[in-house]
Amino acid sequence: MELAKIINHTFLRSDASKSEIQKISEEARKYGFYSVCIPPMWVSYAAELLKNNSVKVGTLIDFPLGASNSEVKVYEAKEAVQNSADEVDMVIHIGSLKSGHYKKVLMDIQAVIQAVDDEVDVKVTFETCTLTEEEIMKACELAKRAKADFVKISTAFVDCAATIENITLIKQVVGSNMGIEVFGGIETKEKASQMVEAGATRIATSSGVSWIRSAGIVDLQV
Amino acid sequence: MELAKIINHTFLRSDASKSEIQKISEEARKYGFYSVCIPPMWVSYAAELLKNNSVKVGTLIDFPLGASNSEVKVYEAKEAVQNSADEVDMVIHIGSLKSGHYKKVLMDIQAVIQAVDDEVDVKVTFETCTLTEEEIMKACELAKRAKADFVKISTAFVDCAATIENITLIKQVVGSNMGIEVFGGIETKEKASQMVEAGATRIATSSGVSWIRSAGIVDLQV
Repeated sequence: MELAKIINHTFLRSDASKSEIQKISEEARKYGFYSVCIPPMWVSYAAELLKNNSVKVGTLIDFPLGASNSEVKVYEAKEAVQNSADEVDMVIHIGSLKSGHYKKVLMDIQAVIQAVDDEVDVKVTFETCTLTEEEIMKACELAKRAKADFVKISTAFVDCAATIENITLIKQVVGSNMGIEVFGGIETKEKASQMVEAGATRIATSSGVSWIRSAGIVDLQV
Repeated sequence: MELAKIINHTFLRSDASKSEIQKISEEARKYGFYSVCIPPMWVSYAAELLKNNSVKVGTLIDFPLGASNSEVKVYEAKEAVQNSADEVDMVIHIGSLKSGHYKKVLMDIQAVIQAVDDEVDVKVTFETCTLTEEEIMKACELAKRAKADFVKISTAFVDCAATIENITLIKQVVGSNMGIEVFGGIETKEKASQMVEAGATRIATSSGVSWIRSAGIVDLQV
């Protein structure tokens, strides 16, 4: 598989300017990345730039804390879809998960999934490093039960790198019908390849362009 | 002035549990802090715990990126007020400020202010370390023009400590009719006192309890 095709070209700086979003969108098109992931306020602009192209536009819901009420997440998700987002990465109620309020976590995920069109992918995001193995498995189980499209490891906002062990564990719970996206701590394309081998199906990174430039597109196989 | 009375007792961990929010609320009451600042999903719970008390309940709007569209910020702010928030700390469109789209920044602040009741304080938050002096002054000017109650320095989510120079600069622009809250990099109560001398009127910190315990309440004057 060509690595570029599973890269989610990610740019989440709060001080992103219009010209930087334009650059990110052009890079995604040029290098054949799967998608861009950008802050909500830039979705309609990126969607306009990428409208005659296969590159998907993704954004964030209640990122990175996930500690808003479900109504806010639903509102944000609807707005993102209205602005032509193809993917929404929602952060779960980590506090509720840790407090054992599983129904609340589940309903929060379900609310976002119900708020968006069927063709929009919903990625259920959480910081693996703040969770125990048991909590990670529980989060995956709830995401699966809600029929989410993806589990996404980490917001990369806390010092929380995805590990091969995380991926293996998550893969055991979600199986092959759900995607696994990793974000944070993927320093090299070799690391990305190892993660794909372990079960990751999408690589969120801001390093995609440098990986490709250093490797040459033809070499970038995983 | 007693330092406790201007402390915004702040707890923004995404994995905060109900019992931790209860602890924060009880501490704020016990030590006579001005307010608590907690994630949106816990506002109604904290407000219930603090309802017969002078401690204000504050929360965050589009925190920490500020890169959602204004409609989302408005929705979040309304929901926070509905859940009995007394203060909302909204993060500006830093990218728009950096791109010179001042009208967009202004309208974003105004939208949140108009969305909440008059008695709810709106704090206009931005990372000083990502801005030039000129941009900081512009942000303050826009906050003042929108009739915000406070300027708040930093989300403490990027490595961005408030400095005495920041406060002095901001004070020059906003004058005495607006508050100045500082957050991030206030390691000691001595540093907090220096900031108050420079013009800060509110100290957002998670260290308030340890400051008071180490000082004894009577010593905690600034």
